[in-house]
Amino acid sequence: MFQSRLMDAAAQVQAHLDATMGSLGNLPVIHAMRYASAGGKRLRAFLVLESARLHGVSPDHAIWPAAAIEAIHAYSLVHDDLPCMDDDALRRGQPTVHVKWDDATAVLAGDALQTFGFECVSRPECHPDPLVRADLTLTLARAAGAQGMVLGQALDIAAETAKTPLTLKEITTLQAGKTGALIAWSAMAGAVMARSDTAPLQRYATDLGLAFQIADDILDIEGDADKVGKAVGKDADAGKATFVSLLGLDGAKARARELVNDACDALDIYGNEATTLREAARFVISRDS
Amino acid sequence: MFQSRLMDAAAQVQAHLDATMGSLGNLPVIHAMRYASAGGKRLRAFLVLESARLHGVSPDHAIWPAAAIEAIHAYSLVHDDLPCMDDDALRRGQPTVHVKWDDATAVLAGDALQTFGFECVSRPECHPDPLVRADLTLTLARAAGAQGMVLGQALDIAAETAKTPLTLKEITTLQAGKTGALIAWSAMAGAVMARSDTAPLQRYATDLGLAFQIADDILDIEGDADKVGKAVGKDADAGKATFVSLLGLDGAKARARELVNDACDALDIYGNEATTLREAARFVISRDS
Repeated sequence: MFQSRLMDAAAQVQAHLDATMGSLGNLPVIHAMRYASAGGKRLRAFLVLESARLHGVSPDHAIWPAAAIEAIHAYSLVHDDLPCMDDDALRRGQPTVHVKWDDATAVLAGDALQTFGFECVSRPECHPDPLVRADLTLTLARAAGAQGMVLGQALDIAAETAKTPLTLKEITTLQAGKTGALIAWSAMAGAVMARSDTAPLQRYATDLGLAFQIADDILDIEGDADKVGKAVGKDADAGKATFVSLLGLDGAKARARELVNDACDALDIYGNEATTLREAARFVISRDS
Repeated sequence: MFQSRLMDAAAQVQAHLDATMGSLGNLPVIHAMRYASAGGKRLRAFLVLESARLHGVSPDHAIWPAAAIEAIHAYSLVHDDLPCMDDDALRRGQPTVHVKWDDATAVLAGDALQTFGFECVSRPECHPDPLVRADLTLTLARAAGAQGMVLGQALDIAAETAKTPLTLKEITTLQAGKTGALIAWSAMAGAVMARSDTAPLQRYATDLGLAFQIADDILDIEGDADKVGKAVGKDADAGKATFVSLLGLDGAKARARELVNDACDALDIYGNEATTLREAARFVISRDS
């Protein structure tokens, strides 16, 4: 069930991004925006759509925050890959934007993808209730900004020049911002749209986000670059503290399993309706890319 | 009257940015955000506050879109100054962010400033009516994105490698996006907040934005680098088409005066209440920085 719903979500969000960006014109920066936001697992879009389904929110509305979060995620990857940041040449098995075009186009395309994300959640088509649109925008800004994703990235940069490696507590804070905040927003989006309690999905998503990052660190050690679609072994080579370096490979795997169990337990209130989200949590630590 | 109101607006928006960003923490990226959003003429904040006053909107509400537009403007400058973009070392008479910190911090600080701008207009404190907050967000996203400011920047990059210099029509489209879109949003913000007709202020701001850019091109020829606070003569040295290269110095000055007269005429409906906005338009073409 999860795999087919993930594929459905991927197809739906891709069609929506194509339709919405298709009208933007023909400049290199537009092509770069579309290139950067194509492909990927679409886990965040899936979480938005599944969280909306759980709360009886129409997919016609939910597709807008799903597109928004994929655009914001894509912007963060384009800027992260820049030579002055992580300097990555490969992403999802394809040349990164600054390699295929140039650095200036990558900066601009990332900037415009962020703006596009905020446009998606503030458009009237996103939801008839303007309070929902304003709340989606506000929570998205907080998840993406200097107390969310950018905070995590800034801590990551600071860690590179720090004299001592990060502690487990520090790396958990870093990752809660860097990858956790957007994942949490995705999982909560349906509850925000239905104006329901976001607490159960927030607990689910916090554990899921951390498990996701631990799985990423494990893939960086055990993964196959062809399957992962980007360079592996970079963190270990750079001597960076990761969950694996701090907990050991077996310890990291055990912690990820524990987090996934906690994530599933947080959904008890939804009963069987949340089966697909529980399967998603288990997928996150078993994936090979 | 205009000069004192411009100074008031500058002081108010600076205090508001300080108060709002003060809680963000102590990382270099936060310092860079505050550094990049300090100073400047604050013409955009002034336009927001003046447009709000004209429509009877409380300054307690209007200060939020004023802070938002200054943050978005600051983000665009930080990224524009990057080595892969315009490669400028000086801005407002101070070292640019990538010079004072590094390129990675400049990318991240710009990213976070954009996010901060969207947070400002979606916060409940910005306006009690969520429809106003959603509309401010949507119009801001359209002004800043791939059909507004980023479009202008992309056309600017494309022009650098083009075989023939831009025509007057092309450079007008470029500048309407690059600088005009945010100026127009600022001038219309008060009407959006009051849910009034934005058309008169849109006509005013379109002419004002173009006059502003023509004045910039004139300053690039006639200006004093110490007063302007950044390098001058760059466009002429680079052989770029500007309003001055296309119209001549006298022709550019005449066109700017004509645009300012048109901008003032567009405010007839507001009578004497709009005197300060008319003075602002005249200031834009008489400034020396």
